[in-house]
Amino acid sequence: MTDNRKYIKTRVKAVRRQLRQKNLDCLIVTSPQNVRYLTGFTGSDSWAVVAGAGLYLLTDSRYIEQAKMDCPGCQKIERREPMAQTVAELLGRLKSVKTAAIEKNISLAGFDELKEQVKAPIKPQLNIVENIRDSKDPDEIKRIEAAANIARHAFRAATARLKPKITEAELAANIDFEIHKKTADTSFRTIVAFGPNASEPHHLRGKKKLKKNDNVLIDFGAKYEGYCCDITRSFSVGKPTGLYLKVWKTVKTAQEAAIAEVRANAKIKAVDAAAREIIKAAALGDYGHPTGHGLGLEVHESPTVSSKNPDTLKAGQTITIEPAIYLPGKFGIRLEDDLLVTHSGCRVLTQACPHYNQLQLVSGV
Amino acid sequence: MTDNRKYIKTRVKAVRRQLRQKNLDCLIVTSPQNVRYLTGFTGSDSWAVVAGAGLYLLTDSRYIEQAKMDCPGCQKIERREPMAQTVAELLGRLKSVKTAAIEKNISLAGFDELKEQVKAPIKPQLNIVENIRDSKDPDEIKRIEAAANIARHAFRAATARLKPKITEAELAANIDFEIHKKTADTSFRTIVAFGPNASEPHHLRGKKKLKKNDNVLIDFGAKYEGYCCDITRSFSVGKPTGLYLKVWKTVKTAQEAAIAEVRANAKIKAVDAAAREIIKAAALGDYGHPTGHGLGLEVHESPTVSSKNPDTLKAGQTITIEPAIYLPGKFGIRLEDDLLVTHSGCRVLTQACPHYNQLQLVSGV
Repeated sequence: MTDNRKYIKTRVKAVRRQLRQKNLDCLIVTSPQNVRYLTGFTGSDSWAVVAGAGLYLLTDSRYIEQAKMDCPGCQKIERREPMAQTVAELLGRLKSVKTAAIEKNISLAGFDELKEQVKAPIKPQLNIVENIRDSKDPDEIKRIEAAANIARHAFRAATARLKPKITEAELAANIDFEIHKKTADTSFRTIVAFGPNASEPHHLRGKKKLKKNDNVLIDFGAKYEGYCCDITRSFSVGKPTGLYLKVWKTVKTAQEAAIAEVRANAKIKAVDAAAREIIKAAALGDYGHPTGHGLGLEVHESPTVSSKNPDTLKAGQTITIEPAIYLPGKFGIRLEDDLLVTHSGCRVLTQACPHYNQLQLVSGV
Repeated sequence: MTDNRKYIKTRVKAVRRQLRQKNLDCLIVTSPQNVRYLTGFTGSDSWAVVAGAGLYLLTDSRYIEQAKMDCPGCQKIERREPMAQTVAELLGRLKSVKTAAIEKNISLAGFDELKEQVKAPIKPQLNIVENIRDSKDPDEIKRIEAAANIARHAFRAATARLKPKITEAELAANIDFEIHKKTADTSFRTIVAFGPNASEPHHLRGKKKLKKNDNVLIDFGAKYEGYCCDITRSFSVGKPTGLYLKVWKTVKTAQEAAIAEVRANAKIKAVDAAAREIIKAAALGDYGHPTGHGLGLEVHESPTVSSKNPDTLKAGQTITIEPAIYLPGKFGIRLEDDLLVTHSGCRVLTQACPHYNQLQLVSGV
């Protein structure tokens, strides 16, 4: 685990600034990703409280040792009672807290329990921590890069072992195996689709076997030290058809066009449009989903890269660019890379994961 | 996928009965597991509504084809607007709905959106579907058995390839690989612990290497067609110490004693006590967690098998029994099997997954 104490301090300061602006004395942090972001805690079932100069982690006996290692900058509270009661006791002790805020992702049941226990008025708030998470700091970028590095190795290892008759499930299992071997997790359930299955954007993986001349779509990611990457590669094994090559080049050109638009202050709509115009002009088929999404502690975060998003990009955001063409009953091609938005443009964090034109497939496939 | 239409009908009828008893006209089902339980739907981001004689699945373009395959007994609604708006439109059309119930696991943010859109009063409700899910029907039991079968194969395959110097992460990756190959998922993040790591109940897996004479704890599960199993095996490779064997036998005896108490109408406390008394009498060490938990669509469901649970067991419940002894700095032994509670006793669903005394480890380990 890298030492990210100084970044964590900066994150917590940013939360305190938000609270002051909103006239709130404290924030009860319930989202596991937000707890990790503000404390470094890697366990489960724990909440954080930011109150005045204090930062508290509320955990239980299962995780107290973990918390001691993970969270040098926090006061650790080992609870023996339900969470709502522990929160109420803490806030009762903190005289400065007149109004508490709670993250609005809490369940209605959890909110009701809290209201019963806590005396101060509780104001539900949306996206206080999420808005800060929107721009990644150097520690976060390093972790996403490490995840991308693991994913690239897994992709290379799994494609090097491609054989006719391997099933989608087996190929996905190979990729997951390589990711797990590096003590990483998968960011989501790995998608492997052969032949016409690749034309369904949400096909998962099944018992379909790879043919001698076939096309493959793999959408996968590694999650390392909390951070996700998300990569899609599409390629043909054996001899590709002329149509496949034409569509592949179109999608690649569309992806490159969108990537060329990415920089701080660029309109998100313009990035989306850059990919779609090329796909539209080629008139070979298209895609119904957004061109991309933010990613970090979660594999889907803001911003959504779509024609409906009126915002501009910000330096430090990490986003995917993933245009596609789906030809139902034939095949689908989606190409997805992860980018760091910078002032001058962007850095492609998943560049080292080979695309079809860079991919050496073993002979016999 | 097995055909479970007749069971689904019975489940929905049970929900309608509950609603009548509580004077509610409709239930908005938001928990993904509950949606699957009542409709068969295997996708994501979709809700179900039980209203009068109607059963509706509210999904979007990504999942509408999936819904058509999965949910022959539902009316499928393809939404293009936010979920709250789609629910409001449906309830507006259903004249019979004067009072709607919503599952209380909904987020506070989601509940607020719903209240803004829906005209009828909305009453949050806890555990309507969960209480029905408590006793498993034959289709569910079949799926848990299938999951257990996949897990057993994975365990056998992974232990057959045990070699000194393999890391915890690699062994976990081997198990996950075997599970994924069968188009199943893992029920949770596989735990592999070598040596003293096994004495931490929540150790995950890391870079620690297996020694020639070492002890291993593996806690893992397969999830198949939506249903989880959950198994822990502890064993020694190479020559076990006298203490290891003594502790192993104690935990096994404790597990058998608890299993012997399991039957419909047995006090849950008594099951917990049966294991703990043997552990206590041996005075070698103990465990702080409950003796077991329910499992099914989720890997942790009610009932908790602990001294604090005043309830009795019911036929059709599926539970784990998992006593342990943890010796900090030395080793830990936990033995976990999954049981179906019956009127005459129980059926151990994970029996075929070998325990240490049945395990053939290859020579050289």
